[in-house]
Amino acid sequence: MTFDVQVEVSLRPGISDPEGATIERALPALGFDGVSDVRVGKSIRFSIDADDRSTAESSVQSICEKFLSNPVIEDVSIVVSGQAEASDGSDS
Amino acid sequence: MTFDVQVEVSLRPGISDPEGATIERALPALGFDGVSDVRVGKSIRFSIDADDRSTAESSVQSICEKFLSNPVIEDVSIVVSGQAEASDGSDS
Repeated sequence: MTFDVQVEVSLRPGISDPEGATIERALPALGFDGVSDVRVGKSIRFSIDADDRSTAESSVQSICEKFLSNPVIEDVSIVVSGQAEASDGSDS
Repeated sequence: MTFDVQVEVSLRPGISDPEGATIERALPALGFDGVSDVRVGKSIRFSIDADDRSTAESSVQSICEKFLSNPVIEDVSIVVSGQAEASDGSDS
């Protein structure tokens, strides 16, 4: 079965975020006030083939820890959503 | 009132995504198979002060169009969630 995955990689609280700080500093000059606490992270979406949802979730967890994030400075949030298509023998 | 905002900026379908392609090519060599359609975007979170939710949503829409994304090649999805804290006169 194929599952849709969304991974959000964000800097941990306390880690300096220069990109977010630059956005926050620029917005008032463009006429947008009242914006604070800007944090910029990465959003990674993909599809993964797995036998069931829990296998998919543990694979994604492992991919995130080993490859997509730096656990020292980054947090990861993972959403595995319903199967995108059946690939276990059914034709439709 | 203060609202929490999450903005996801992703490349439009059909726009080449070299970062996603590199991840997809690297994963099998690391022992992770079955991953496809990798797309990398940005996730931007911030707080915004506004009188009500619809004002907040229209401000965020405008910030995204003018500043955070390039509408020619990028799509934006916006989530404005419940107020983070009261700032309209109540003390708590």
